[in-house]
Amino acid sequence: MVILFFNRFVLSRGVKIVPDVQSLDPEAQLPDLIVLPGGAPGAKTFEESDAVARLIDRARKEGVYIGAICAATKALVRFGAEGGWKARVTSHPSVQEAVVKAGWEYAQDKVVLDGKVITSRGPGTSLLFALTLVETLCGRERREEVEAPMITASEL
Amino acid sequence: MVILFFNRFVLSRGVKIVPDVQSLDPEAQLPDLIVLPGGAPGAKTFEESDAVARLIDRARKEGVYIGAICAATKALVRFGAEGGWKARVTSHPSVQEAVVKAGWEYAQDKVVLDGKVITSRGPGTSLLFALTLVETLCGRERREEVEAPMITASEL
Ligand SMILES: [Cu+]
Repeated sequence: MVILFFNRFVLSRGVKIVPDVQSLDPEAQLPDLIVLPGGAPGAKTFEESDAVARLIDRARKEGVYIGAICAATKALVRFGAEGGWKARVTSHPSVQEAVVKAGWEYAQDKVVLDGKVITSRGPGTSLLFALTLVETLCGRERREEVEAPMITASEL
Repeated sequence: MVILFFNRFVLSRGVKIVPDVQSLDPEAQLPDLIVLPGGAPGAKTFEESDAVARLIDRARKEGVYIGAICAATKALVRFGAEGGWKARVTSHPSVQEAVVKAGWEYAQDKVVLDGKVITSRGPGTSLLFALTLVETLCGRERREEVEAPMITASEL
């Protein structure tokens, strides 16, 4: 008998997704990019996770790109600051104070790229964030290839 | 012994979601709004579905709002036209020809609202589409309440 079981995860607005990877091994080889998605409850989960803390610390030491959007920037700056990391970032306005308190330089741009750290503000900036991630990893041409059929606004 | 089983559905870009409702009863009471999401493979699935054909026909007869975005407008106009329905719509450019061929009036606006039919163009216009759906069903005030913390671009 075979039982197929998927862990489904409930996002902050009730959408249920099934991740490709079901568990996090913080000692596995790092991917080219780690992204912390937003959502206030999700950001809190990140902040309470030793595995996420370890991943952020390794990203810093190994020079891997790390992205965070919306409230998730809070987890990034918290664990990053513990390792003495500081970069110019943005976040959802609701966590701006916490980010500034942690001593990170704050910008209100829709997407901020500083060294290996890429951050963005919220759901409304997520397309621009995603396209910036594609461009950073795969180049301008690939970004345009992905963006064109999406019918994005002239000013994202 | 209890076995929990979720049907997961794979979207056109590989994201796996678990819908709240696992099967479609085309004779059940209609909701306030039916939305056909896009994705070329999904639109094709809609076009091959008798249940979707029946829902579109009932939406027309019962005066329920119906939305379609991206390639999904193709399924809407196809089944709608069979019932003699015609409205002003938009779609992803890749299915514009099919929409025009079905005799529906075509517009290139990001979102088109004509009577009970709300259509939009693609992933890049999906936020504006979603906010228009909220406004249509719940009013301007609710839309602003939802939109403000999303940090949307000045021109969506
Ligand atoms: Cu968020």
